[in-house]
Amino acid sequence: MQVGKNHFRTIWRDENDPTQICIIDQRYLPFEFVIETIATVDDMATAIRDMHLRGAGLIGAAAGYGMYLAALEAKRFPDDLLRSAKKLIETRPTAVNLSWAVSRQLQAIGTITDPTTIRNTMSALADEIANDDASRCQQIGLHGYKIIEQIAQQKSGPVNILSHCNAGWLAFVDFGSATAPIYAAQQQGIPVHVWVDETRPRNQGAHLTAWELHEQGVPHTIISDNTGGHLMQHGLVDLVITGTDRTTRTGDVANKIGTYLKALAAFDNHIPFYVALPSSSFDWKITDGIREIPIEMRNEKEVKYIRGRYQKEIRDVLVANPDSPAANYAFDVTPARLISGLITERGVCEANEQSILKLFPEQRK
Amino acid sequence: MQVGKNHFRTIWRDENDPTQICIIDQRYLPFEFVIETIATVDDMATAIRDMHLRGAGLIGAAAGYGMYLAALEAKRFPDDLLRSAKKLIETRPTAVNLSWAVSRQLQAIGTITDPTTIRNTMSALADEIANDDASRCQQIGLHGYKIIEQIAQQKSGPVNILSHCNAGWLAFVDFGSATAPIYAAQQQGIPVHVWVDETRPRNQGAHLTAWELHEQGVPHTIISDNTGGHLMQHGLVDLVITGTDRTTRTGDVANKIGTYLKALAAFDNHIPFYVALPSSSFDWKITDGIREIPIEMRNEKEVKYIRGRYQKEIRDVLVANPDSPAANYAFDVTPARLISGLITERGVCEANEQSILKLFPEQRK
Repeated sequence: MQVGKNHFRTIWRDENDPTQICIIDQRYLPFEFVIETIATVDDMATAIRDMHLRGAGLIGAAAGYGMYLAALEAKRFPDDLLRSAKKLIETRPTAVNLSWAVSRQLQAIGTITDPTTIRNTMSALADEIANDDASRCQQIGLHGYKIIEQIAQQKSGPVNILSHCNAGWLAFVDFGSATAPIYAAQQQGIPVHVWVDETRPRNQGAHLTAWELHEQGVPHTIISDNTGGHLMQHGLVDLVITGTDRTTRTGDVANKIGTYLKALAAFDNHIPFYVALPSSSFDWKITDGIREIPIEMRNEKEVKYIRGRYQKEIRDVLVANPDSPAANYAFDVTPARLISGLITERGVCEANEQSILKLFPEQRK
Repeated sequence: MQVGKNHFRTIWRDENDPTQICIIDQRYLPFEFVIETIATVDDMATAIRDMHLRGAGLIGAAAGYGMYLAALEAKRFPDDLLRSAKKLIETRPTAVNLSWAVSRQLQAIGTITDPTTIRNTMSALADEIANDDASRCQQIGLHGYKIIEQIAQQKSGPVNILSHCNAGWLAFVDFGSATAPIYAAQQQGIPVHVWVDETRPRNQGAHLTAWELHEQGVPHTIISDNTGGHLMQHGLVDLVITGTDRTTRTGDVANKIGTYLKALAAFDNHIPFYVALPSSSFDWKITDGIREIPIEMRNEKEVKYIRGRYQKEIRDVLVANPDSPAANYAFDVTPARLISGLITERGVCEANEQSILKLFPEQRK
């Protein structure tokens, strides 16, 4: 997507040395546009854990390249690879794309033992995982913009879409999941306006989604996370689209903490609530999201401190009573009953097992 | 309540000059404890508008003293008083206590024309408004702690109470509304733990509620506003108590933006959701909160910037994409159907007109 006048993806091979991986270091957005070059699996694990990059699809692509970097470094196969795989998977417990990408890499090499063949296989598959992510997101856009188009035909003025966290192109390799229908609608000339939840504690909405929408020229307004319910009560939201970090085969959706609250408000006000996801975000093994999806707890500092710009410096400032403890749950689970539909690369379905399996029949047991 | 080893109210007459009014300047909490002395009605209007002080009851008390200061300054009666009354009422459009206190002052002087009698009358009534607020909050505590006690008897471990914004003693003259039952429970030896919503955009939870609870020795944990739904899904919240800035005679509650979302989550998880209020926060004239209560829109800077401490300095830092606009709705309305009960100085009632009027029969039409 656009950054100023240039087109970028979130992850790519270094032009001069294809064994090094470049990423946009998202910790500095929206204040600075920083590119980080990653040469080792350890650095990739750090980049994932410390959120130089984040987001369902991008974490998957990064894990794919991480395994490739692991293969370049490995001396003993498969032991060193398995150790790296474990390290990568442990960086973010809620994200299903992580283990999905790592498993794909391990399955691809199967019983191959020749280091060069392993490296070449993993190199090609890492590219494939990244490219697949981009094309799945593009497909999500093509299916999803029709929902926006339909609403546009029934009202005058822009379609007001509420978004939570960043499920934009910065969370994937390109296009995004929740943003893909918005970008596709914009391309089709459908007027849209996006309410951007700032998404505490890490402010991915105010930092990243707002930045992408601005770069792409999509009208939008940042709001505190508390605001969505009020807007919905007053007819100022036509549609909610969020992403997901893990979705059960029954349609329960783990996503950034606070998603559940917006789903409740949408349900209470009869506003459609859609979740956009590439199929890599399904966890086909589980059926009860609230009981079975582990919820990552992050450092309390992310709640008590916030990163911002003061004059020209980026600083972490204390925004809470210094003597009080804080808790930092990173995700919550929205039960399928509150979700109007899932927008996938194969089309739109209802959030229930039967409807999901119609689109993904190969996952029938 | 306690600040370190001393007892404070939020507003009081200067010890050396009772025609000057002292307040805790809450803009500096929790980082600094600053006392401001106010000598003119203009300065009181500024203190209310720019939130040196805030909160339903305290705004009422400040308006009472503001009218007293206006009387001290006035040259032409009642013209100058009426102009000051208008100025005070316009500072915060959602708070009903503001016009309630100003009206009480104007009614008290009735047709009196003697300046000295007017000043004495208003002086006495300003004290009375402040003292009444404190004693109403104390009564709220005595009625409300029984709800906590009942939950405590049905479980082991502390009663987990979720709070939104600051409806603590800092929002009143003393004791608070939502906190009064908590402080009373603590006094009775009932173990409690409070989940403190940080309450963006102004962080009154993380700044003020956390500070008061800490000073008072009540166990608590700060969370982002997005978190409450997840905690409720997992049995980690036993009770929600919030305050209100204006409540209709039918039990609809206007309170800090985001309250509605927590009420939805409590309802969805069968968790009791109570609103604590002195009767001064009722607006007896209206019946439909969502349609009739004006919602204050504040400056977008409160969303895009956040006040925090960096090293020893208090700074406003930019926490959003600089090029994006923001919207700042300060309150929302929780419909009565989501509210388990109202805790008033006269007892606990259901959130409906019939039950409210049983406690306040003088408001029957």
